[in-house]
Amino acid sequence: MIVDSALYRGGTRVDLDCAPHEFDKLRAGVESPGDFVWLGLYRPSEHELSEVAEAFGLHPLAVEDAVQAHQRPKLEKYADSLFLVLKTLWYVDEDDAVETGEINIFLGRDFVVTVRHGRGSQLRSARSQLEAQPELLTHGPGSVMYAVCDTVVDGYLDVVRELEIDVDEVETSVFSPERTKDSARIYTLKRELAEVRRAVQPLREPMRRLSSGEVPAVPAEARPFFRDVLDHLTQANEVGDSLETLLSSAFEAHLAQISVQQNDDMRKISAGAALVVVPTLIAGIYGMNFEHMPELGWTLGYPFALLLMGAVAGGLWVLFKRSGWL
Amino acid sequence: MIVDSALYRGGTRVDLDCAPHEFDKLRAGVESPGDFVWLGLYRPSEHELSEVAEAFGLHPLAVEDAVQAHQRPKLEKYADSLFLVLKTLWYVDEDDAVETGEINIFLGRDFVVTVRHGRGSQLRSARSQLEAQPELLTHGPGSVMYAVCDTVVDGYLDVVRELEIDVDEVETSVFSPERTKDSARIYTLKRELAEVRRAVQPLREPMRRLSSGEVPAVPAEARPFFRDVLDHLTQANEVGDSLETLLSSAFEAHLAQISVQQNDDMRKISAGAALVVVPTLIAGIYGMNFEHMPELGWTLGYPFALLLMGAVAGGLWVLFKRSGWL
Amino acid sequence: MIVDSALYRGGTRVDLDCAPHEFDKLRAGVESPGDFVWLGLYRPSEHELSEVAEAFGLHPLAVEDAVQAHQRPKLEKYADSLFLVLKTLWYVDEDDAVETGEINIFLGRDFVVTVRHGRGSQLRSARSQLEAQPELLTHGPGSVMYAVCDTVVDGYLDVVRELEIDVDEVETSVFSPERTKDSARIYTLKRELAEVRRAVQPLREPMRRLSSGEVPAVPAEARPFFRDVLDHLTQANEVGDSLETLLSSAFEAHLAQISVQQNDDMRKISAGAALVVVPTLIAGIYGMNFEHMPELGWTLGYPFALLLMGAVAGGLWVLFKRSGWL
Amino acid sequence: MIVDSALYRGGTRVDLDCAPHEFDKLRAGVESPGDFVWLGLYRPSEHELSEVAEAFGLHPLAVEDAVQAHQRPKLEKYADSLFLVLKTLWYVDEDDAVETGEINIFLGRDFVVTVRHGRGSQLRSARSQLEAQPELLTHGPGSVMYAVCDTVVDGYLDVVRELEIDVDEVETSVFSPERTKDSARIYTLKRELAEVRRAVQPLREPMRRLSSGEVPAVPAEARPFFRDVLDHLTQANEVGDSLETLLSSAFEAHLAQISVQQNDDMRKISAGAALVVVPTLIAGIYGMNFEHMPELGWTLGYPFALLLMGAVAGGLWVLFKRSGWL
Amino acid sequence: MIVDSALYRGGTRVDLDCAPHEFDKLRAGVESPGDFVWLGLYRPSEHELSEVAEAFGLHPLAVEDAVQAHQRPKLEKYADSLFLVLKTLWYVDEDDAVETGEINIFLGRDFVVTVRHGRGSQLRSARSQLEAQPELLTHGPGSVMYAVCDTVVDGYLDVVRELEIDVDEVETSVFSPERTKDSARIYTLKRELAEVRRAVQPLREPMRRLSSGEVPAVPAEARPFFRDVLDHLTQANEVGDSLETLLSSAFEAHLAQISVQQNDDMRKISAGAALVVVPTLIAGIYGMNFEHMPELGWTLGYPFALLLMGAVAGGLWVLFKRSGWL
Repeated sequence: MIVDSALYRGGTRVDLDCAPHEFDKLRAGVESPGDFVWLGLYRPSEHELSEVAEAFGLHPLAVEDAVQAHQRPKLEKYADSLFLVLKTLWYVDEDDAVETGEINIFLGRDFVVTVRHGRGSQLRSARSQLEAQPELLTHGPGSVMYAVCDTVVDGYLDVVRELEIDVDEVETSVFSPERTKDSARIYTLKRELAEVRRAVQPLREPMRRLSSGEVPAVPAEARPFFRDVLDHLTQANEVGDSLETLLSSAFEAHLAQISVQQNDDMRKISAGAALVVVPTLIAGIYGMNFEHMPELGWTLGYPFALLLMGAVAGGLWVLFKRSGWL
Repeated sequence: MIVDSALYRGGTRVDLDCAPHEFDKLRAGVESPGDFVWLGLYRPSEHELSEVAEAFGLHPLAVEDAVQAHQRPKLEKYADSLFLVLKTLWYVDEDDAVETGEINIFLGRDFVVTVRHGRGSQLRSARSQLEAQPELLTHGPGSVMYAVCDTVVDGYLDVVRELEIDVDEVETSVFSPERTKDSARIYTLKRELAEVRRAVQPLREPMRRLSSGEVPAVPAEARPFFRDVLDHLTQANEVGDSLETLLSSAFEAHLAQISVQQNDDMRKISAGAALVVVPTLIAGIYGMNFEHMPELGWTLGYPFALLLMGAVAGGLWVLFKRSGWL
Repeated sequence: MIVDSALYRGGTRVDLDCAPHEFDKLRAGVESPGDFVWLGLYRPSEHELSEVAEAFGLHPLAVEDAVQAHQRPKLEKYADSLFLVLKTLWYVDEDDAVETGEINIFLGRDFVVTVRHGRGSQLRSARSQLEAQPELLTHGPGSVMYAVCDTVVDGYLDVVRELEIDVDEVETSVFSPERTKDSARIYTLKRELAEVRRAVQPLREPMRRLSSGEVPAVPAEARPFFRDVLDHLTQANEVGDSLETLLSSAFEAHLAQISVQQNDDMRKISAGAALVVVPTLIAGIYGMNFEHMPELGWTLGYPFALLLMGAVAGGLWVLFKRSGWL
Repeated sequence: MIVDSALYRGGTRVDLDCAPHEFDKLRAGVESPGDFVWLGLYRPSEHELSEVAEAFGLHPLAVEDAVQAHQRPKLEKYADSLFLVLKTLWYVDEDDAVETGEINIFLGRDFVVTVRHGRGSQLRSARSQLEAQPELLTHGPGSVMYAVCDTVVDGYLDVVRELEIDVDEVETSVFSPERTKDSARIYTLKRELAEVRRAVQPLREPMRRLSSGEVPAVPAEARPFFRDVLDHLTQANEVGDSLETLLSSAFEAHLAQISVQQNDDMRKISAGAALVVVPTLIAGIYGMNFEHMPELGWTLGYPFALLLMGAVAGGLWVLFKRSGWL
Repeated sequence: MIVDSALYRGGTRVDLDCAPHEFDKLRAGVESPGDFVWLGLYRPSEHELSEVAEAFGLHPLAVEDAVQAHQRPKLEKYADSLFLVLKTLWYVDEDDAVETGEINIFLGRDFVVTVRHGRGSQLRSARSQLEAQPELLTHGPGSVMYAVCDTVVDGYLDVVRELEIDVDEVETSVFSPERTKDSARIYTLKRELAEVRRAVQPLREPMRRLSSGEVPAVPAEARPFFRDVLDHLTQANEVGDSLETLLSSAFEAHLAQISVQQNDDMRKISAGAALVVVPTLIAGIYGMNFEHMPELGWTLGYPFALLLMGAVAGGLWVLFKRSGWL
């Protein structure tokens, strides 16, 4: 599906009298370096994409990747174009889950084609932000690539911040005195973090290349912007790593808490048992059939025995408390 | 065993009037660069292979490797030929097991010899796919190497996807409320993953070299294809790593579940014990032999005692439930 | 907020008759290389900073970072200035907690702007130390950067030393015979160490670059000073790593202690139980209703039975002690 | 002790009329490049070795190493000779243990001195294999170095294969339903693997250098042979790593099995206890002394009570089985 | 404190008629390259060191380090001198503890100043060994640096060997059938090993530089000696790493042993309990008050009951033993 297609000339969007899929008309509007066509697609069919590929001369292997989706983030350099694959991430509050989409960018001298798979408004917001900064747009199609990367990577930071909150909750839960079942929660968070890492880590090398001047298609004045994106990426990565380490520590602490609790329970149980079995022994003693047991003849023998049982139980209780057993 | 042998000229298979093992006749049909003979062997005897080695001038160390099998994946450059060792992987559904075979490829200027050990249809499917793409075949024998690598690495991705399903099952089992014995399953999956890694990791360096232009025998226009294979290899590797991390986390969670369950069991047992020992104490009390125990003379003393026992047990039960012990 | 602003000429502070925010007047006082203006800001508003940026020609991306704070430590080179981000750390005794602030340094040919976020007296002490060493001040604005880095990194070493004490305490607690709940303490210390690492590690690369001559703005005679800072940074990092390893080992030892203690408790409980159930059995025996039980008729039967119970219990106790069970 | 000493000329052993220690006579027989003397020593005394050192001009530091043994595998280049230290490994079936020896090789232009410490027939078998391949021997003394390395590294692979069998046994034992004490076995195997790694890993760099052409003493045509050795070394290393990972997983599974078993035991114990304490409660009830207890007067009261006990116990048993408790 | 100061000319110590602190007189005795003054200090005061610094032109930052001690091992190159920091280690038998000192070496063209902090006779033994090898001394002051490094690193190997013995003891203790409390011991050993690593690891880079020819002050003929030191350092490091891995494995095995022992204890306890509660049930049965219980009237009823109890207990015991429960 074609979401939007437009010609940008001298930093501003030009209204052309043509349908979105009349790529040749759009491209014919390019007049000087820096002018370019931006075509935005959403889950294009193979057919749609092959038309686009023909119009803009995209490389077949890259087109195949863009149809299939489920690629690793990567930057491929073909003879006269770049192909960038980005994972998009967003946090779904209701499930505490991280979901992923994919954006592919084909970048030529005078065009940029963005292909989105999965949810997300990254492309729309990138487009509207860019259109508000004409001076950036004059950098040519590379500015689109920068704007999209910036929006996507800011999304990573948002997701990572949500996960930070989740980790804080888990931490509180682990060290709360209640019996909590945190291991499933910790496991799920580790899975989410692995998802984030799969999006973040392979993107570092492409961003490094874009910001270092190894890719000639990126003009020198645009490099600090990619360096900024790389910086945010590194930050997302570092926070992710640190959350993972915290989760591992929290899990270990959880294990320790379980053991401590089991020990506490065992002590409670044993104390409780003592409070019953010792009186039972007393009852057993007064249930013996000896002929000569003076207490048995006492008028107050029975209440005395009950009292004895109570006193012994109470004494034990005090003893357990005082000795630190309970 | 010679499975197939053919001459490819100008991108198409040429029917020659000769037996499969008349290598000289086949080779004589090579007319211009890009023409080549493709000889496919399955578990050749030492004798068969030495004949082939003589006909095509293969290096003795490589031939030795191809007979023995059980080599690590590697790419060796000899004076005028390349030797590539690949591990093949497939998933056997009935055992949930990963099995391995081996493919060796000898690549010369005008010939390619493929040797297969172990099950697998990779070579046949690679041959038929290639024969359907004459334009690829015109790249010469390197196209065969690419096609085989592509098929084999796609096989890795298939295996990894099956293992992903297995890991999901284990995960579900670990967090199910039932008492499961997941540690053996997790162990086996880790073994399978190690098997995969042994095939995947050492192949990365050869693929990198083939895709980077370090190996002159690979024409420049074929490099993006090897880059594509390398990309899939990296993906298989990353998914494998991530599955391993998940399995480790799942195992730890399993350990935690065992501990939690033991604690739960201990609480159930102690509660059950309380329901028995407290009435036993009551019975013990009324079994005492004091002369003056008014209850003993009551007409309804006995039912009263039974009721007391029941009431105490019931009360304890409610207490355990309310206090969160059970 | 402008904390201080001054002109340094020939290594000494010059008293100029102008308000702190009259940057142009200050800068006009620069006469020869090595003279420079040092402007110190604390949590500047966006407006304040944009005025400063205009006056000194700071790069907009750097200014944005300085307003937001919460950046990673980094060194950015712009056309004619450097931008350095440092994390400051200090140890809060009352909570045993490590807290963090941030210092940003803009360095030009004839000016240095330092921006502080969060608590800390690093800038003031750096300024007063520098003013006491005129020969250092003649190195130009780079000497300010060195002095700030030195003070900040010395702060890291202080924090690390405090954490070393905390780790020693945890260690003592883990191996004390008492039942301690060290896992929460260990977890918190690991968090603090992660905080330290987040400040220390990303700073190493900038310091390496400043000390190695890759940054032309640092004069050759100043490099040994940055090498000194890098050395302290490496030391802080190594001690931090080693504390983390110790904490992990201490945690494992804590787990082992819990298990050992549980075992000890179980043995105590079982011994205690034996001391009750065996006499109960004896009482049960003498509670049997056989017609011919000689002991029942003995005058001293009852005391004998009680003695028997006591003797058996005492014997068991001795047995448990001797056999090493308790 | 001089084990063997001989002159090799043109690829074949030359019988000279001289005693083994008449090194000068032997060396005088060298006529053209490729001819060389091979002197084999076993645990030479310091005196013996110093004679050899003088005769062949060996470097004192290398000689010191060869006397002491207990060196790390390494390759040292001196002005006109090479010094290689190899660890030899063999598997002692009766103890399931890996033992180590050491071989030192001094390599000059026209001589090779091999020094063996510890058990092993590597040198003898290397010599006899070489003597059977005159074309290899014509490569000069480097062929001896290759042959020794090849034999030693093949020995590593043998050891690693034996350890693979041991690991398989441990694995079977861990997952067997019996109570096994595998932790000592696993620990020992880890020690053996560490032993192997200490021999294998430091040797990789020397082999890489020998196979890459960095060492001029190795003729170009011999490099593929060292590459082959390096390949086997890498294989030994990879299998070793993978065994270690398996052992760690097996150990973790063992821990899980212990926990599961403890839980199973606890359930069995509690069930067994229930089968006793519930009948005890019944006996207690009928041991109460109420005047009005109709059952006591029944003729069949006693058998009824016994039956009741049996029935309750049986019922509990069925309940435990059905509910999955046992 | 000045421990010793002397002039070495042409490889031998020259007796000069001057006090130890008359540095200028000493230095005036230097006649040709290779002659040098060796000044040995022990815990010099700031004042003493500043005098030395002035006399020999030492760099102030290095002097500061030498006063403070507690530096990381490092090699600093100043304009015309080298500054090397070494940690010394020794093993204190009575506490099984590793202690550390520090040696600083200032190396100029014609002098070497060695500063020792902490216990240790490394410098004295290095000096006497060197004075016995005049040919080494002719290499100039670099020979002193080599001799000190050699002695210090040999000390590392000694310490590591002592720790190897300790680890063997721990190992034996872990797998002994007794209940041992090894976790504290293992923890302490890990701390000692961390101490060793802190001395060894940062020294590797300086030694590599000294042995590789990157430091012009080291003459070519001295490099093999530093290579030898580096080799010993690597060995100390490898053994240290391997001990640490062993300790971790031993700790895990210790945890497993605790669990196994707890399980064994639980089984013993349950068996012991069974031996008491089953007879108690029998006693309870014969304590029931049924009118018609034939056994009660038997003359030998009582002994029969006791026998029954004994027989049942004995039977249970045999059952437990046979079934492998105990």
